[in-house]
Amino acid sequence: MGESRLDVQRGNQKIDWAMAHMSLLRLLREEFRNSMPFRGHRIAMSIHLEAKTACLALLLHGGGADLQVTGSNPLSTQDDVATALAARGVTVHARHGATEREYTDDLKHVLEAQPDLILDDGGDLTHLLHTEMPLEIVGGCEETTTGVHRLRILAQQGKLRFPMFAVNDAKMKYLFDNRYGTGQSVWDGILRSTNLLVAGKAVLVAGYGWCGRGVAMRAAGLGARVIVCEIDPVRAVEAAMDGFTVGPMEEMIARADFLVTTTGCRDVVTRSAILNAKDGILMANAGHFDVEIDKQALSNLALEKENVRDGITRFTFSGGRTIYLLGEGRLVNLVLGDGHPVEIMDISFALQALTLKHIVESAPLAAIVHSVPAEIDHRVAEMKLATMGIGIDALTAAQEAYLGL
Amino acid sequence: MGESRLDVQRGNQKIDWAMAHMSLLRLLREEFRNSMPFRGHRIAMSIHLEAKTACLALLLHGGGADLQVTGSNPLSTQDDVATALAARGVTVHARHGATEREYTDDLKHVLEAQPDLILDDGGDLTHLLHTEMPLEIVGGCEETTTGVHRLRILAQQGKLRFPMFAVNDAKMKYLFDNRYGTGQSVWDGILRSTNLLVAGKAVLVAGYGWCGRGVAMRAAGLGARVIVCEIDPVRAVEAAMDGFTVGPMEEMIARADFLVTTTGCRDVVTRSAILNAKDGILMANAGHFDVEIDKQALSNLALEKENVRDGITRFTFSGGRTIYLLGEGRLVNLVLGDGHPVEIMDISFALQALTLKHIVESAPLAAIVHSVPAEIDHRVAEMKLATMGIGIDALTAAQEAYLGL
Amino acid sequence: MGESRLDVQRGNQKIDWAMAHMSLLRLLREEFRNSMPFRGHRIAMSIHLEAKTACLALLLHGGGADLQVTGSNPLSTQDDVATALAARGVTVHARHGATEREYTDDLKHVLEAQPDLILDDGGDLTHLLHTEMPLEIVGGCEETTTGVHRLRILAQQGKLRFPMFAVNDAKMKYLFDNRYGTGQSVWDGILRSTNLLVAGKAVLVAGYGWCGRGVAMRAAGLGARVIVCEIDPVRAVEAAMDGFTVGPMEEMIARADFLVTTTGCRDVVTRSAILNAKDGILMANAGHFDVEIDKQALSNLALEKENVRDGITRFTFSGGRTIYLLGEGRLVNLVLGDGHPVEIMDISFALQALTLKHIVESAPLAAIVHSVPAEIDHRVAEMKLATMGIGIDALTAAQEAYLGL
Amino acid sequence: MGESRLDVQRGNQKIDWAMAHMSLLRLLREEFRNSMPFRGHRIAMSIHLEAKTACLALLLHGGGADLQVTGSNPLSTQDDVATALAARGVTVHARHGATEREYTDDLKHVLEAQPDLILDDGGDLTHLLHTEMPLEIVGGCEETTTGVHRLRILAQQGKLRFPMFAVNDAKMKYLFDNRYGTGQSVWDGILRSTNLLVAGKAVLVAGYGWCGRGVAMRAAGLGARVIVCEIDPVRAVEAAMDGFTVGPMEEMIARADFLVTTTGCRDVVTRSAILNAKDGILMANAGHFDVEIDKQALSNLALEKENVRDGITRFTFSGGRTIYLLGEGRLVNLVLGDGHPVEIMDISFALQALTLKHIVESAPLAAIVHSVPAEIDHRVAEMKLATMGIGIDALTAAQEAYLGL
Repeated sequence: MGESRLDVQRGNQKIDWAMAHMSLLRLLREEFRNSMPFRGHRIAMSIHLEAKTACLALLLHGGGADLQVTGSNPLSTQDDVATALAARGVTVHARHGATEREYTDDLKHVLEAQPDLILDDGGDLTHLLHTEMPLEIVGGCEETTTGVHRLRILAQQGKLRFPMFAVNDAKMKYLFDNRYGTGQSVWDGILRSTNLLVAGKAVLVAGYGWCGRGVAMRAAGLGARVIVCEIDPVRAVEAAMDGFTVGPMEEMIARADFLVTTTGCRDVVTRSAILNAKDGILMANAGHFDVEIDKQALSNLALEKENVRDGITRFTFSGGRTIYLLGEGRLVNLVLGDGHPVEIMDISFALQALTLKHIVESAPLAAIVHSVPAEIDHRVAEMKLATMGIGIDALTAAQEAYLGL
Repeated sequence: MGESRLDVQRGNQKIDWAMAHMSLLRLLREEFRNSMPFRGHRIAMSIHLEAKTACLALLLHGGGADLQVTGSNPLSTQDDVATALAARGVTVHARHGATEREYTDDLKHVLEAQPDLILDDGGDLTHLLHTEMPLEIVGGCEETTTGVHRLRILAQQGKLRFPMFAVNDAKMKYLFDNRYGTGQSVWDGILRSTNLLVAGKAVLVAGYGWCGRGVAMRAAGLGARVIVCEIDPVRAVEAAMDGFTVGPMEEMIARADFLVTTTGCRDVVTRSAILNAKDGILMANAGHFDVEIDKQALSNLALEKENVRDGITRFTFSGGRTIYLLGEGRLVNLVLGDGHPVEIMDISFALQALTLKHIVESAPLAAIVHSVPAEIDHRVAEMKLATMGIGIDALTAAQEAYLGL
Repeated sequence: MGESRLDVQRGNQKIDWAMAHMSLLRLLREEFRNSMPFRGHRIAMSIHLEAKTACLALLLHGGGADLQVTGSNPLSTQDDVATALAARGVTVHARHGATEREYTDDLKHVLEAQPDLILDDGGDLTHLLHTEMPLEIVGGCEETTTGVHRLRILAQQGKLRFPMFAVNDAKMKYLFDNRYGTGQSVWDGILRSTNLLVAGKAVLVAGYGWCGRGVAMRAAGLGARVIVCEIDPVRAVEAAMDGFTVGPMEEMIARADFLVTTTGCRDVVTRSAILNAKDGILMANAGHFDVEIDKQALSNLALEKENVRDGITRFTFSGGRTIYLLGEGRLVNLVLGDGHPVEIMDISFALQALTLKHIVESAPLAAIVHSVPAEIDHRVAEMKLATMGIGIDALTAAQEAYLGL
Repeated sequence: MGESRLDVQRGNQKIDWAMAHMSLLRLLREEFRNSMPFRGHRIAMSIHLEAKTACLALLLHGGGADLQVTGSNPLSTQDDVATALAARGVTVHARHGATEREYTDDLKHVLEAQPDLILDDGGDLTHLLHTEMPLEIVGGCEETTTGVHRLRILAQQGKLRFPMFAVNDAKMKYLFDNRYGTGQSVWDGILRSTNLLVAGKAVLVAGYGWCGRGVAMRAAGLGARVIVCEIDPVRAVEAAMDGFTVGPMEEMIARADFLVTTTGCRDVVTRSAILNAKDGILMANAGHFDVEIDKQALSNLALEKENVRDGITRFTFSGGRTIYLLGEGRLVNLVLGDGHPVEIMDISFALQALTLKHIVESAPLAAIVHSVPAEIDHRVAEMKLATMGIGIDALTAAQEAYLGL
């Protein structure tokens, strides 16, 4: 109980720090306190349960919602934050280091409460709602590239049961979270866990989507030579024009001191790539699932496997060659760091909150994958500019006439 | 006649230099020589007539087309190249420094030859074909943002008479031409015409689209502090996150040593902005038309107007304050430089040539604004990678299965 | 005792990780094991006692030295490393969080062992040797800008009692440690302790020496707008030409979201600067002593002072304006991080070890401030290139003749 | 005569443009008009005779000097500027495209006028004064790295006959001219003469001194992958830490699309490097003399040599492999461009003018190589800051006391 009180205190301190730097959520908190847009609604949330997502939960809670929260990854749940959140009246089902079984049970618990809105991160809630627990859902939001990809497959197969909004595809999400957010937080995670120098190193980034660009951009900003592996030829030319070395994985991995996967796909670093890897390479993953680096192959090929530092496993191969794997190949910025910077999540969560409000106001909506309305994107951008103290010009009548709009 | 022979020689030298660095067009030249895809077709081209576009003309000509060429801007036509092109069997109607009247007559001349395909740059040919000269056209390509914008308005009004392909909107066009091409060539034009230092200067970039990003990125690369003015709030936040100062024109222009407009819109630098501009500011335009900087206001407000250097006009205001206008506010990279780098146009022109071939092979097509097929984008990207000596991985079956494609 | 055994294990793990990435020290370890250059010598070391410095201690110990180690800052001493070091046969007098008195006593203890060589970091050992404990010293090394500055003052006053080498002034030290080391580790410390975004923020760097350059370069690399305050006019022009905003502290601090001091001087952020600071600013110090930000003034001016997160103090002023101070204004990269990257210290410590060896071999030397011999600088650079797998050309006879060398 | 009048007009226009952007020289012009520091002195100048150096000449002339001007390279002399300068009362002996013999005669002519002060650029005047024409000289300035190197050899041999100031070694010279000046102007020269893309290309920079850093920095800023060849190991490590690829010339040249030499040494690109060079490589030199690329070897090895564009020679080797040499291997920024940016030369020439004034005021001085006094460096920096509108803080008494100054 003393433990728990300490937890609440520590959790609150983390939440307060985040809230102090989430200026958009603070603006919306004022607005929702008056309008109570979620009154009468029950929201199930699956999130990386830490201080920033707790702020989103508190915003929705303060806007009238009955809230049911679970984690979206057992390793990213912070128990002190969960405890503090529960102490503020939110129902929480999540525990750090939960087993696979416990994790799934928690997902089910939040659905057993019969929510009518969902807020998903990766698609686990949605999956349950399409298999074991087919509830009636008014609508929901999906945060990640991976989750949206899973939604589109469901929709293409004609199986999507309720309207879902691809928050990930909003400009204010993927242009910022995936690029500036992942870009910074991946390096934060690597720096703090390794204490190694980036300047002068060869950094291989697998994938040149928005996440990959962010990771590459910041690697260059830290003084690395950047190598990009990308299967899309247009993006590969772009990476080359951006001044990076481009080539196939099996060749490039032999030159790399660090490797970061950002593709959202499996088997990016395969057995044969592992065999070619440079001695002493550090491998990390920034994609949603821990399937980008073939961990099974690493274990099978290695003579020895040892935990040499918090979150770092060393695999030793014949001849003494070594590979270091960070965070067991899970999201390095979450497992070895605190996830995305606060201000980035502030933007993404403002999108989430306004999209949920839009769902409530526009229901019923078709059971398809919806785009976040452009007005919400613009409103969030304008709020962000305002909190940064930046004014911009408006389109004039003369310009509008010229453009023939 | 001696003059003309010298012109042919100089023109050929320029064309040969370009062709030596257009590796994609050289590959297509081999292919088209055998397949002769344009045999029996007459193509009207309106282009900035210089060495690189001449290479495109020669490619189409070598692929069997009867070619009718005119300029797309009287100041960008290079007479020696025009003469050399004519000497190689292409019909050319264009002259440097043509009057407005002569320019329009030349556009009409190429249409009087009854082409069935067009290749437009800015939309002047298309305009004539929708007003005075309503010919039957199988299809055509449009190269610029501005031209595509005009096409979309025609299409929205239900007036588009024949299929047009928005080459500008192909990824291999706007991601490269508008960003790396404009980015480099604008600064090439400014450096060579001014001999001024960029490092330590404040550079205001108006517009943060692909062109504006390119100009901003290279300004930073030359050591400038970059200021961005942008009316779209999402792009404005992006510019801020990219480390640039963002704000409204009238305030920002008071701090800028250089100003470059890249918006494609009119009235970007208005009378009141001019009144606020920093003493000694250099203004240049990189948009298609010379309407972004209000030249009329500059002339009206100035006490004195003097040509102080090739392509540079100094406007002197009361109190001795000065503004320098580059290239009369026309496209600074074309008027004061040689336009986009050769390799960039090589990519854009490979798209043009393959799109024209696609039109011929797919006719008849609907009278709408078409996108360049993704296969053409990919093929051009793959050709470019091959000529750069870059190999990339292919999607594996396991990955494809995982992605559920 | 269980605690202690666990400490040894954790300390060893940290030391092993560092040693695995200190390729120069590993090369020297082989060499010293054979030559035993320090046999018969007793070395007193004052260092930030953590894994990397422990590797230097072990190198000297393995080279025959009797080693006496103490910390150079009570907050940077890591107890597990100290315990592990002691377990390997090194005499250690240091404890994390020691009081001022205990800290001084520890300094005295290592001197009471009658060393003939010293290795100083900041000048505290040297100070004692010139005041209370005037031992006979063969020579020593000083690592920091601050310590070298103190040595030069002693020398100018004719008071320096024994030969000291300004290791800080070796090229392989200040060009690397102060720039790439401080640049990365300061941001590592700030990122991990705040979880805040750097992109789009205004970062004020006070001082544009080698440390300041590193901090500014990495801030820009993380997407910040950089502002530099510098009192030397030549450096101020350089900062401006590097694309940074330059100006006086009291004006610039009103625009800054982050502030990092790197001057090595006191009273950089004064009372009046504090009064002008932007609401919510985060202040950190990267200089050797905690005198750059006027902490007294912060406390006096604030209405409230609260610890809001590990290592972060919030000062609240009238009207609700806040300032966050990181790590109590002490070296942010050491107090809130793990100090410089391993590879950077590997270079600096190779210089230290070879300089100590040089002192032993060349004694007696004059009691002045010596430069590290250029041959040592070159040898360390060549070792570093070799371990990076980089070959370079040698000066040819023809070139040498041309240069008239 | 009409020709000549036109020349004067064109020359004046160039000079006026430069003077309008040389704010330091304009400040000194006011000062010298009153104090007339050079009254009674005759100054011999050997300079790259174009608009900016003409402004320096006019400043000294306006400060009372009798001025004798010649070129420092026959290809950099601009006849219209020379004519305009003569029309303003300066004695000029220089002609564009002068033969070796004529060039030497011109150098002698300015010395025959019996100057007592010299302003040298590369050391040709100084050489004559130590061989054929041993005049009495009160003192002089040398502008370039190469010239200072030659001076130091003379001094080491005990042969230097009069005091010379190494203006090149002043901070406001080498930190700015060699880095930001060379960096920008080399790329200006290459871009305008080739119209080729830099983004995505591999650029080899030979030498990582201040010039090489500038060229490398700007190449990266234009989107290139940068490769550095450097014989000094410390600088080689620096280049690697700056994120560049580092290696030996013969290996690296096989990967390079562009090559720029900046070493000030001969035989940097040797016969065997030429044999290894990548097909289609463009080679340029930014060092003072045209000896860095072995032009003799190029000619000997090539099957064909053709001028393919203004200032570009193509060498064709067996198998069709080609190498393009820019500007005959002479200073590419001067031969194919307009030399350093105006504002950079403004700084360098302010140093020159104030140093000449210092010589006059301090004569007689020892016949050694003098450093520019730190006060002059500081004064020039302060003048520059003032003209940029930048204020900086002063060292306070408390800080001074702390530093023990």
